[in-house]
Amino acid sequence: MRIALDAMGGDHAPAPIVAGAIEAARTHEHLHVVLVGDRERIEHELSKDAEAPRDRMPIEHASQTIGMDEKPVEALRKKRDNSISRCWNLMATGEVKAVVSAGNTGAMVASALFNAKMFLPGVRRPGIAAIFPSHQGPIVICDVGANMAPKPEDLYQYGVMGAIYAETILGIPEPKIGLLNVGAEEDKGNDLTKATRALFLNSPMASRFVGNVEGRDIYEGNARVVVCEGFVGNVLLKAGEGAVEFLFSELKQEMSNLLPMLGSTGGAVAAGLKDLKARYEYQEFGGGPLLGIRGACIISHGSSRERAIKNALRVASVMADDKLGARITEQLAAGPGVATTEA
Amino acid sequence: MRIALDAMGGDHAPAPIVAGAIEAARTHEHLHVVLVGDRERIEHELSKDAEAPRDRMPIEHASQTIGMDEKPVEALRKKRDNSISRCWNLMATGEVKAVVSAGNTGAMVASALFNAKMFLPGVRRPGIAAIFPSHQGPIVICDVGANMAPKPEDLYQYGVMGAIYAETILGIPEPKIGLLNVGAEEDKGNDLTKATRALFLNSPMASRFVGNVEGRDIYEGNARVVVCEGFVGNVLLKAGEGAVEFLFSELKQEMSNLLPMLGSTGGAVAAGLKDLKARYEYQEFGGGPLLGIRGACIISHGSSRERAIKNALRVASVMADDKLGARITEQLAAGPGVATTEA
Repeated sequence: MRIALDAMGGDHAPAPIVAGAIEAARTHEHLHVVLVGDRERIEHELSKDAEAPRDRMPIEHASQTIGMDEKPVEALRKKRDNSISRCWNLMATGEVKAVVSAGNTGAMVASALFNAKMFLPGVRRPGIAAIFPSHQGPIVICDVGANMAPKPEDLYQYGVMGAIYAETILGIPEPKIGLLNVGAEEDKGNDLTKATRALFLNSPMASRFVGNVEGRDIYEGNARVVVCEGFVGNVLLKAGEGAVEFLFSELKQEMSNLLPMLGSTGGAVAAGLKDLKARYEYQEFGGGPLLGIRGACIISHGSSRERAIKNALRVASVMADDKLGARITEQLAAGPGVATTEA
Repeated sequence: MRIALDAMGGDHAPAPIVAGAIEAARTHEHLHVVLVGDRERIEHELSKDAEAPRDRMPIEHASQTIGMDEKPVEALRKKRDNSISRCWNLMATGEVKAVVSAGNTGAMVASALFNAKMFLPGVRRPGIAAIFPSHQGPIVICDVGANMAPKPEDLYQYGVMGAIYAETILGIPEPKIGLLNVGAEEDKGNDLTKATRALFLNSPMASRFVGNVEGRDIYEGNARVVVCEGFVGNVLLKAGEGAVEFLFSELKQEMSNLLPMLGSTGGAVAAGLKDLKARYEYQEFGGGPLLGIRGACIISHGSSRERAIKNALRVASVMADDKLGARITEQLAAGPGVATTEA
């Protein structure tokens, strides 16, 4: 399995990105990780580890890098030789089966959406999924930012694809699907949620559909897949991160007065908090998948470290399995709003 | 100042509601709190406190109560003699200058929107504001659920009214206004955010407008007023509550292993955590104001206890001040999209 990794993407790139790739290649012997980006800098990082499996870690040189805060479409146009576009080119020519990047999310998505040939048959428009924690374990929220003006049929497809992801990658048998809304009653919400609700109820997914899920209920985990428009999902994702960061900074301040009093157990308390915080840092699944493309794509968090990249590569290799794509196409074909081949 | 209090609204009503009213009336001698609801049950609660200032706490009997989970519009139609409608009737006839309820939010808003004569001159459509914590102190988010399909002009008005609320009630001089969006760049978002951004930049509020605010940035507090459509704000509010509840339940579990080891300092740690949690429980301002109506309305959280109700009554009495309404009308008149009198 060959995967293209954007070695230049992320707040701390390339060091932890390359280190994560080495770990992944060492652990999974079937993996070939194509490191995309500045050859010299990547070589430098690889040279730090004498035991890196270099034979399975080729470098694909790209002279330019899109910054985390650059405007995606403009940057893609101006920097023709950037590492993100190069990754997708490798996908388009079939040289790799998956792409992983912790770089500029907008550029990753724009670059993917640019070429409808990359879409899985039947997919209207890919969506980004994010993994949230819940009392029942991890849940999938889709879309969190790829589609700012979705149709009900798009949300239906996010439900189908999110459920297949939840089953295959998160190991949840027959995950329930919910619709993010402002109340539990059926007549709640806006035109989009009302139409989406009706669509699910009259689809092959009806038995899996649990109806509206309020913001508060997300964390209960009764729905293991929650669909929403990209604008709402993006606000939800980022506000969640902001809230957790804020809470932990307040907690740290609160604790700083107490920890010295605790002596040796203070260390245990601090470690417990750190461990708790880590659970919210999306490391385990390495980031959010872009659902609906051929092969696989994981968009990792900009702050990704070695462990997140290693996990992203592992998840991407499972997702890139042909059977997963075939299953998505098959299940979409059985429901409403399937895209006709137009590429 | 006479305020109508829905004595039957809230998860724990009427006990903590009436207790909060007694506290408020005792503390603020200019306050007259009209207790609306089941006379017998209210009498019973009042009789528990021999020192309640009964002369400033008249009872307005309403034989019916709308449950927290009832469908708002349907319940308002079926239960004609409910306590929420009775509160608004007292407003409409000028018998009170403010309404406070911890009851069914949808019913509170629907009942208010039903009568455009209740709107302040120039207001297109009232919005619910919520108070969030931030590193800079409390911030105002509007709308969090009154308006599911707002126009850019509505969001502009929420900015103006939110800013006046932030100044008057939260004591923030010249608060900055931000637009909730999926990125910081100007071309981000959907049609609504793009048009709203342009509207702010060409309005008397331009100098106060800081542009797009991402979900993550909310808690930084650079914008002390953040405007968004009701659907997004509602998800944000409820998901924030859900995240905090989830986090504290995990934290509690984490700590339960450690606290016994800590001995006497364990109590201090537990108290610190409890104190931290309380800061997120919206008690201080007693709930969210419905901005844009004559007089004032505070919609308190369903779980409100005595302290929240006491604070809601205090805030409502400040808001009901005629000058605040006049200021809103004046500032709206100077900007775009002012509503013409049609009532």
